[in-house]
Amino acid sequence: MPSISIKGRTMPQSPIRKLVPYAENAKKNGAKVIHLNIGQPDIKTPQIALDAVKNNQLAVLEYSRTEGSEGYREKIAEYYKRNNIHVQADDIIVTTGGSEALSFALGTIADTDDEIIIPEPFYANYNGFATASGIKVVPVVSKIENNFALPPIEDFEKLITPKTKAILICNPGNPTGYLYSKEEIQKLAKIVLKYDLFLIADEVYREFVYDNREHYSILQEEVLSNNGIIVDSVSKRYSMCGARIGFLVSKNKEVISTAIKFAQARLSPPTYAQIASEAALETPQSYFEEVKTEYVARRNLLISELEKLEGVKVAKPQGAFYCIAELPITDADDFAQWLLEDFRVNNETVMVAPAAGFYATEGLGKNQIRIAYVLDQPTLKRAVHILGEALKTYIG
Amino acid sequence: MPSISIKGRTMPQSPIRKLVPYAENAKKNGAKVIHLNIGQPDIKTPQIALDAVKNNQLAVLEYSRTEGSEGYREKIAEYYKRNNIHVQADDIIVTTGGSEALSFALGTIADTDDEIIIPEPFYANYNGFATASGIKVVPVVSKIENNFALPPIEDFEKLITPKTKAILICNPGNPTGYLYSKEEIQKLAKIVLKYDLFLIADEVYREFVYDNREHYSILQEEVLSNNGIIVDSVSKRYSMCGARIGFLVSKNKEVISTAIKFAQARLSPPTYAQIASEAALETPQSYFEEVKTEYVARRNLLISELEKLEGVKVAKPQGAFYCIAELPITDADDFAQWLLEDFRVNNETVMVAPAAGFYATEGLGKNQIRIAYVLDQPTLKRAVHILGEALKTYIG
Ligand SMILES: Cc1ncc(COP(=O)(O)O)c(C=O)c1O
Ligand SMILES: Cc1ncc(COP(=O)(O)O)c(C=O)c1O
Repeated sequence: MPSISIKGRTMPQSPIRKLVPYAENAKKNGAKVIHLNIGQPDIKTPQIALDAVKNNQLAVLEYSRTEGSEGYREKIAEYYKRNNIHVQADDIIVTTGGSEALSFALGTIADTDDEIIIPEPFYANYNGFATASGIKVVPVVSKIENNFALPPIEDFEKLITPKTKAILICNPGNPTGYLYSKEEIQKLAKIVLKYDLFLIADEVYREFVYDNREHYSILQEEVLSNNGIIVDSVSKRYSMCGARIGFLVSKNKEVISTAIKFAQARLSPPTYAQIASEAALETPQSYFEEVKTEYVARRNLLISELEKLEGVKVAKPQGAFYCIAELPITDADDFAQWLLEDFRVNNETVMVAPAAGFYATEGLGKNQIRIAYVLDQPTLKRAVHILGEALKTYIG
Repeated sequence: MPSISIKGRTMPQSPIRKLVPYAENAKKNGAKVIHLNIGQPDIKTPQIALDAVKNNQLAVLEYSRTEGSEGYREKIAEYYKRNNIHVQADDIIVTTGGSEALSFALGTIADTDDEIIIPEPFYANYNGFATASGIKVVPVVSKIENNFALPPIEDFEKLITPKTKAILICNPGNPTGYLYSKEEIQKLAKIVLKYDLFLIADEVYREFVYDNREHYSILQEEVLSNNGIIVDSVSKRYSMCGARIGFLVSKNKEVISTAIKFAQARLSPPTYAQIASEAALETPQSYFEEVKTEYVARRNLLISELEKLEGVKVAKPQGAFYCIAELPITDADDFAQWLLEDFRVNNETVMVAPAAGFYATEGLGKNQIRIAYVLDQPTLKRAVHILGEALKTYIG
């Protein structure tokens, strides 16, 4: 029997995947499971996007242009301009989700054994894309004590080697909910310019920013024109995760022309999804206001309820829809599994994502979990109640 | 300015891409360009698939399951059973086009600097996927003289090294149109078993097989259960290239569980496309009969017209919808560009794909072009006429 690749063997499992059989089992045994573990919003997709697909007049479902149609990319450029990001259609490649934009970005800038520095905890699939590309992730620790703010620049500098090709940030952050300030972005700009690195910013949660704060994109920094690459997505913005449309955006022409070669190999992004995504650009502002109001209410409820629990520490998120909570336990993996296997309140339990999977440094985050607040408020409240009861039983 | 990766710099351009600006220019100057260069069929997508999307009732366009829904994969398994390929839902991963299935297959079985042997000429994007994965393509030459049949097994054996991980075939072939016989598949089975390699078969053109011949899949060979991986796609089968749905199929559990880790990183295949593709499974048999009749008529016309041209040699395709023609010239790149820049018949010209881009061996295929017969018969006839006139002028 031929053997699979080392790459394949070391490809990380999604940190949640291990728990899925336990969740399925719980459901099979009649329990209800509240999913705090997934980033699939319950928010309705804008009707205008759904309708565009229902009203399409295609007779042949053809490949689209590799980098997305000119017309669509021009509209995306206008969207960015409305967000103070001055790019042209030619600076944009339409990808199959932000996921593919991440793959293309890594392939474009890094070779086998090259290194990219990422503040941890980070979106776990960065590990997968890096492994698939043969690239090494070098983590720099950010801390719950200060809400996962940008680590000191000296911490980055200590990690830079001749193999370092980029710093990758997620802003606002999944799983941290942290929103980098303009000053933090400028600090990063300085260091990538000093060491001739790329700065890749995953800005898929750009719109999800609370408390009257403003998102500051890396491409608002003019000095980053050659060094900046934005990874973006319609998935969360319009609650259309299943479309699979994202963007790679850069003003560096060589980055774009190289990434297009990766894009050519896979022919084109999905056609129906582009119809939906182009129409979604016309979503009325009121939709976003409503969604944001809802997320703020959920966050406030979640945080205040969590803070009532003995021994629980939470980083207050300013963006996205995740938070990291530190629990008075030592092994969140075990706790999460136990919740699914053994703990019920009125025949209901919760599924959480153990945070260790979001850290690259072995041993970190073992007492932390990530919670996604993509559920309605009564459910969230019940979920935290169950979590509180569970902690008492588990510790006691 | 930070430099892009060597990988990015060596990523191949699509062999057609270089010519695109010349084609655009010709059109700008008022000429009509007949595209013999692309594999985008003009055939209508089955109405049942288009309707399923138009009638969808989604309110939230959610991520689908990473490997495709259980229900859909069960139906795909039935499709395979009808084609004498006995696989279960669990042996199938739904991917974003056959393109992604190819990426996952390569990542699953090969590490950086590993080698895969591919009969050339081959689908040019294999180069792209290999480069992106850091894998080396080792070509074995097949010849127009015998219609691009399987090269002698000794030719493969000479190329096998400790780094060889797989043989990759395309059956029926793009760009060759060659259909491997059962005996040829069995020869390949023997060699991959002898050397403990994988056999990856790109069977995306399975249905496009002519002259009462039958497609023989690698997974019809029971001995290949552990070694065989099928790459498949709905793109051409239902003329729905823009859907972006394909499959990776293997009875080797380790291959599937590893490929699923690659799939998890990118979350899910596109949701609308899965709705269309699931419905497409109900396409009436008459649709395929009509399509096949049309392709056979086109092929017959194309080949007989080409054979009338002085000095032109054609490999008669038994499947897919491409053929390779050898022309009485020395540099098809130059000829193809000249056609677009300087040659017109009634203000019309043709765009062909120079075949050198389908060979990995430098220097091969320089007097060959690939023609896709995805256009109606009158247009094909006119195109070959233009080609004939062009050759006279170009040579003269
Ligand atoms: C931080 C972050 N980046 C990228 C993605 C990829 O999303 P998609 O591929 O759906 O655009 C996600 C999805 O959850 C995410 O949380
Ligand atoms: C031989 C071959 N394999 C794979 C593909 C990839 O097709 P898709 O990604 O649309 O399924 C193509 C497309 O032309 C092809 O010709």
